[in-house]
Amino acid sequence: MKFKSTAIAHPNIAYVKYWGKKDEELRIPLNNSISMNLGNLYTKTTVEFGDFGEDIVIINKNAAEEKAKERVVKHLNRFRNLAKTTLKAKIVSENNFPMSCGIASSASGFAALTIACASSLNLNLNEKELSIMARLGSGSACRSVPDGFTEWSMGTCNDDSYAVSLAPTEHFEIYDLIVIIRDERKEISSTKGMQKFNPYFYARLAEVQENLNFVRKGIIEKNLKALGTYTEKDCISMHTVMMNSGLFYWEPETLKIMKEVWNLRKNGIECYFTIDAGPNVHILCLPDNKETIKEKFSDKFEILESKPGGKARVTGEGLF
Amino acid sequence: MKFKSTAIAHPNIAYVKYWGKKDEELRIPLNNSISMNLGNLYTKTTVEFGDFGEDIVIINKNAAEEKAKERVVKHLNRFRNLAKTTLKAKIVSENNFPMSCGIASSASGFAALTIACASSLNLNLNEKELSIMARLGSGSACRSVPDGFTEWSMGTCNDDSYAVSLAPTEHFEIYDLIVIIRDERKEISSTKGMQKFNPYFYARLAEVQENLNFVRKGIIEKNLKALGTYTEKDCISMHTVMMNSGLFYWEPETLKIMKEVWNLRKNGIECYFTIDAGPNVHILCLPDNKETIKEKFSDKFEILESKPGGKARVTGEGLF
Repeated sequence: MKFKSTAIAHPNIAYVKYWGKKDEELRIPLNNSISMNLGNLYTKTTVEFGDFGEDIVIINKNAAEEKAKERVVKHLNRFRNLAKTTLKAKIVSENNFPMSCGIASSASGFAALTIACASSLNLNLNEKELSIMARLGSGSACRSVPDGFTEWSMGTCNDDSYAVSLAPTEHFEIYDLIVIIRDERKEISSTKGMQKFNPYFYARLAEVQENLNFVRKGIIEKNLKALGTYTEKDCISMHTVMMNSGLFYWEPETLKIMKEVWNLRKNGIECYFTIDAGPNVHILCLPDNKETIKEKFSDKFEILESKPGGKARVTGEGLF
Repeated sequence: MKFKSTAIAHPNIAYVKYWGKKDEELRIPLNNSISMNLGNLYTKTTVEFGDFGEDIVIINKNAAEEKAKERVVKHLNRFRNLAKTTLKAKIVSENNFPMSCGIASSASGFAALTIACASSLNLNLNEKELSIMARLGSGSACRSVPDGFTEWSMGTCNDDSYAVSLAPTEHFEIYDLIVIIRDERKEISSTKGMQKFNPYFYARLAEVQENLNFVRKGIIEKNLKALGTYTEKDCISMHTVMMNSGLFYWEPETLKIMKEVWNLRKNGIECYFTIDAGPNVHILCLPDNKETIKEKFSDKFEILESKPGGKARVTGEGLF
């Protein structure tokens, strides 16, 4: 019997954002969301269940901080319950992107952990069940479970809130150029921020269906204009809802790059931005324009580049 | 009989903003708004009705451009109708603040024009009637008619939509430090922008009553914290509604200064920002902190300073 397994999962960039929960504990959202896995970035996680004195959690070569460890142990308990075991676990997890770059690793982290746990405990879970388990660890992690471009259907309860693939990795060669903006501030937990509802949040809910429809269609029809236009709209929607809750993720440079994206577009270079709960600007473009856009920003900013990425999966070589 | 008169009026800075009209033509708003006249800035306008071949409109020493002239002539017609005259008019108007600084002169301009027209045609209009007439020229001009701190009651029709003074100029010594941010873009007409409704606009309407109540109370009780907190909230509300209509007035430097205002406050220097339909940041503070705040920004930015200002009024010396 195998009790050790390694998995990798990609972070994802949401075209239509996840903001606001119907159920805090189960992480059931108030709207569907759509994202693309970022193939060039990943978290790799090895899990071993065995005769350890306690759960050991090592992230990027360091023992996890207490809060992060608690969240991982809670996730381990979900799998121990399923497998009816009391075995402790050793977890070693690494990202191939720097922690300081502002790219959230909770989606890829909990997706990889989910796959590795299920595999090492020989649980025979299908993709839907894996996506549900990942969601319980971190909402957007459920979108990192299926392949390529995925939609998280909000559902109504634990059993029907999960993500499916809208199109595989190779369907549409979109690049995400991530312009990294460093800031001095402490990170604001998006879990905490999301709890702040206000009238603007409900306004967002009133128009998010339209964004979903255009973005989904844009992916399926490989129409960057539709995808990008409504991705930008959705990004502005989420961030303005946040601002009305007192959450400002934009730095002056964020706004500068947003405006430069509009200028590029005015000059015939098709690209669109989106921004997660942080200051980085993700610029979406087709292969033809990638180098031109990178040149525009690379003298002042570090840029990470990514193509669409595959599903969360078991991989051969372990981390210990 | 006197047919020539000169008036001055101050621009105003809105604590609770005017955004969205119930009636385009009559400029009836969808919410009350509250502002302070800016005593150090003014428009001075001389009007003479007489035997001119056509209306002559000179603004800041130049013949007015066609669109601006049309709007002025339309306003003159309102007064000609009231006075039952067909006399043409010569208008000379000057601002004591530069056109290029991004401070809207339509409020002070139409308030001064209203007072000068009424006076030169010997129309015996009371403050309410003058505020109504100014509103027809430019919505926020109605707030520049009464003294000091004023509230524009939205009303329901032409006859009950006008501004009254909440407190006189000398009631509360607030300073508005206007940090001037130049931008290359063409100005977006707020009249045009305001027509774009979206779900966020209605969210704004849902919470604007609270902002009005706290700002009004803050003025009456001379409580800068209440006034400033809800002024900032209202500013963010208006700008995020605008952003969701595709109107971005903020420049990267606007955001930078907003964040520096928060930092100043964190360091015990009480001040609050607000932003009109442009990139300038208005910083509100009490006399004690004025110089400290100015020093913070004056090496990089031009700063205009203003105390509360009086009502729009007839003045002695004419411009021709």
